[in-house]
Amino acid sequence: MKQLHKQSSVNHRRDEEMLIPQTPPYSPKTLKHPRSLPRSINYLFKEQRLLFIFIGILIGSTFFILQPTLSRLAPSETHPSIPRSFSKDEVISHTQDFSVSTKPLHGKPGRVPVGIGRRRMRIVVTGGAGFVGSHLVDKLIGRGDEVIVIDNFFTGRKENVVHLFGNPRFELIRHDVVEPILLEVDQIYHLACPASPVHYKYNPVKTIKTNVMGTLNMLGLAKRVGARFLLTSTSEVYGDPLQHPQKETYWGNVNPIGERSCYDEGKRTAETLTMDYHRGDGVEVRIARIFNTYGPRMCLDDGRVVSNFVAQAIRKQPMTVYGDGKQTRSFQFVSDLVDGLVALMEGEHIGPFNLGNPGEFTMLELAEVVKDTIDPSATIEYKPNTADDPHMRKPDISKAKELLNWEPKIPLREGLPLMVNDFRNRILNEDEGKGS
Amino acid sequence: MKQLHKQSSVNHRRDEEMLIPQTPPYSPKTLKHPRSLPRSINYLFKEQRLLFIFIGILIGSTFFILQPTLSRLAPSETHPSIPRSFSKDEVISHTQDFSVSTKPLHGKPGRVPVGIGRRRMRIVVTGGAGFVGSHLVDKLIGRGDEVIVIDNFFTGRKENVVHLFGNPRFELIRHDVVEPILLEVDQIYHLACPASPVHYKYNPVKTIKTNVMGTLNMLGLAKRVGARFLLTSTSEVYGDPLQHPQKETYWGNVNPIGERSCYDEGKRTAETLTMDYHRGDGVEVRIARIFNTYGPRMCLDDGRVVSNFVAQAIRKQPMTVYGDGKQTRSFQFVSDLVDGLVALMEGEHIGPFNLGNPGEFTMLELAEVVKDTIDPSATIEYKPNTADDPHMRKPDISKAKELLNWEPKIPLREGLPLMVNDFRNRILNEDEGKGS
Ligand SMILES: NC(=O)c1ccc[n+]([C@@H]2O[C@H](COP(=O)([O-])OP(=O)(O)OC[C@H]3O[C@@H](n4cnc5c(N)ncnc54)[C@H](O)[C@@H]3O)[C@@H](O)[C@H]2O)c1
Ligand SMILES: NC(=O)c1ccc[n+]([C@@H]2O[C@H](COP(=O)([O-])OP(=O)(O)OC[C@H]3O[C@@H](n4cnc5c(N)ncnc54)[C@H](O)[C@@H]3O)[C@@H](O)[C@H]2O)c1
Repeated sequence: MKQLHKQSSVNHRRDEEMLIPQTPPYSPKTLKHPRSLPRSINYLFKEQRLLFIFIGILIGSTFFILQPTLSRLAPSETHPSIPRSFSKDEVISHTQDFSVSTKPLHGKPGRVPVGIGRRRMRIVVTGGAGFVGSHLVDKLIGRGDEVIVIDNFFTGRKENVVHLFGNPRFELIRHDVVEPILLEVDQIYHLACPASPVHYKYNPVKTIKTNVMGTLNMLGLAKRVGARFLLTSTSEVYGDPLQHPQKETYWGNVNPIGERSCYDEGKRTAETLTMDYHRGDGVEVRIARIFNTYGPRMCLDDGRVVSNFVAQAIRKQPMTVYGDGKQTRSFQFVSDLVDGLVALMEGEHIGPFNLGNPGEFTMLELAEVVKDTIDPSATIEYKPNTADDPHMRKPDISKAKELLNWEPKIPLREGLPLMVNDFRNRILNEDEGKGS
Repeated sequence: MKQLHKQSSVNHRRDEEMLIPQTPPYSPKTLKHPRSLPRSINYLFKEQRLLFIFIGILIGSTFFILQPTLSRLAPSETHPSIPRSFSKDEVISHTQDFSVSTKPLHGKPGRVPVGIGRRRMRIVVTGGAGFVGSHLVDKLIGRGDEVIVIDNFFTGRKENVVHLFGNPRFELIRHDVVEPILLEVDQIYHLACPASPVHYKYNPVKTIKTNVMGTLNMLGLAKRVGARFLLTSTSEVYGDPLQHPQKETYWGNVNPIGERSCYDEGKRTAETLTMDYHRGDGVEVRIARIFNTYGPRMCLDDGRVVSNFVAQAIRKQPMTVYGDGKQTRSFQFVSDLVDGLVALMEGEHIGPFNLGNPGEFTMLELAEVVKDTIDPSATIEYKPNTADDPHMRKPDISKAKELLNWEPKIPLREGLPLMVNDFRNRILNEDEGKGS
């Protein structure tokens, strides 16, 4: 009965296949010998022919089912000594400052089978829906890699990556790095952490958890799968520096019990953990200490001076200057930072590396540039300085220049208009949203 | 059948009770009327007397079973506004340095019902099986409180608290503070953390977890049950200080990526968390920054100079001096520290407070004291200084003197012999253990 049913269904399918060509009226050829159909079926049923067809189907299917698994296994079986094959820069990495990793290269094949297309990497970017993260993702997708973004959308926005939603090499996971996650990847860019004081002070304990447990989880992942790990630390680890400009060897002057400590100490401990995983477990790590960065996709309300001035000038409000406006800041355009992060990840030095623009501007000079760019009639409003005004900081980037061959290229007068365009659109949309 | 069995077992018990006094031969009084026993039993069985005995037992038991629950409920029901009743110092606490807690007193009754005995507190000491912890526990038990020790026995030893095992006011829980725990307590002394470099460098990632997640868990507990929380931080938060002696306002000079950073940065982040729970959640907190401490029950192998010298002199080995021996250290006897910790917990100031002995000794002076105390023929062996030699540190304790009315009382020449006695016994036991 079962067999009968099978046979009839097969017949039915064959009938369909053979009948389909009959439908188009424009091809008379297929109408040849319509009467021979029952005979061919008869033929099929004789001498176990059908059985052999089934065996053939079975063999074919087996091959296609097993093929991806086989080719994934192949490189590590046949070339066990070939190192992970993702970058020509891939060498055991160390600087003079740090003990050399004693472990051999992990000897794992890339996540993508060798021989299928170009050797593409699979890269996680935590915090990839944020300001810096989304620009980094654009660059990695642009050069042909697969990118998985992990974000809890605390300060990140889907709008920052929405243009990648159709791309099969892009994936977005809503996940909090405070919880562990299992993935198979080659590189981890660990950016997840609110960067602006308004955001990181909102829940200081969560900020510490994100920095400490988040970094622990990502280092654990890197260790398990043999991925390379990059931490985005911050110039805040220098605190209120007594050295100017700051070199990477400077230990900093940080208040451990202040309102900003959750960020500063959280990042310092994240650096400690990163080095401990390197020294203790041979994980390949990189540490970037990022200085003030600006550009499109920054949070409108992040409370830092560039976004404040730009948003105020666009909204025709006076720009707020705290104190006398003579305190200085350095500003780096986001594409420069992203280039630096990638150079660091692909290079052979652990760091830490200062990534920032050493050019200094006073608040009043910045206001002038904003005026020139947006609205020459913009005004300035002076307010008394706040108690925890960010400290004067200027990076010494000679280490990155020498070892990573990196330095920022975009001057403020060139980068600011790009940011202004983005802010203008978003503020316009905002206003329209309110109006409707 | 069941009832019969019950009755006979009751009878059996009663028989025993009545028979016991008969056994001692020295008291002729109990031998009176031996023949009346069967008659009394007969009597008992008549007129449902046994039934009434059962009813009586039932009433009595019910009372005793319900009584603690009732009296525990009573105070909060009848005096809902009575504040937690554990100390005359119990006031909302703050120093000028920090924002005043805006939350009202938690309004919870003490864990021990009012009206039953003296108002005793229930206190958790994490790391209570360690060197400092066990002395603190002795003091708290000595003044009549209930103490729960939480320890994972990483560096602690049961021997340190074995003398308290029979005490109903003492309890020992084998638990790792990296995992949360639920307890009903009034105060939390949070000491759990390896203190000596050999121990905390053994697993640096675990050291950070203990400091960050352990402190988080204990602060969470304090918040939930409204307990007061004391963190034992360390003079290591000053790192390699550029200020001498160190005041509590000094922010320190700490390497974030060195081999000792797991301890230094871990403790700094623990301080940050403590202040964040205070500012954000109104938890009553205290922070002690402890300087070098010595005394009985220190680990023999903790690698620090006092235990090194003493153990070497007792074992008739030369005392190892690194470098020229002219670097200085300050040493505080453990009972002074314990007094300071209790004064801080009971007082009304958050801290941080330096707790240490400002008296300075060079390594050679220390060796001299050890020689005088143990063995005048002891010799010194000079070795080249190690790269991460602990830094010169001397506490400025004027804040603790003024606000806690505390200062160390035991000079080195008085404290050292107490430690030497303990070390002698333990080294002797060790040797006997080896010999047998
Ligand atoms: N922008 C700067 O000037 C600057 C300066 C120094 C360092 N950094 C560092 O660079 C990184 C990126 O900064 P940014 O300016 O893009 O900030 P951002 O706030 O725009 O982006 C941070 C991203 O991390 C996500 N995130 C936060 N907590 C998370 C968690 N627990 N789990 C998962 N995702 C989480 C946010 O949703 C957001 O998308 C941060 O680590 C920051 O500390 C930035
Ligand atoms: N002794 C000093 O000179 C000194 C100086 C500065 C600070 N301190 C601090 O004082 C505290 C006590 O120091 P100590 O000298 O008694 O050290 P110790 O090593 O003798 O005691 C620490 C105790 O904590 C326990 N412990 C460690 N990790 C734990 C975990 N994850 N969970 C539960 N228990 C854990 C250990 O088993 C041990 O009993 C520590 O916090 C230390 O950092 C001590």
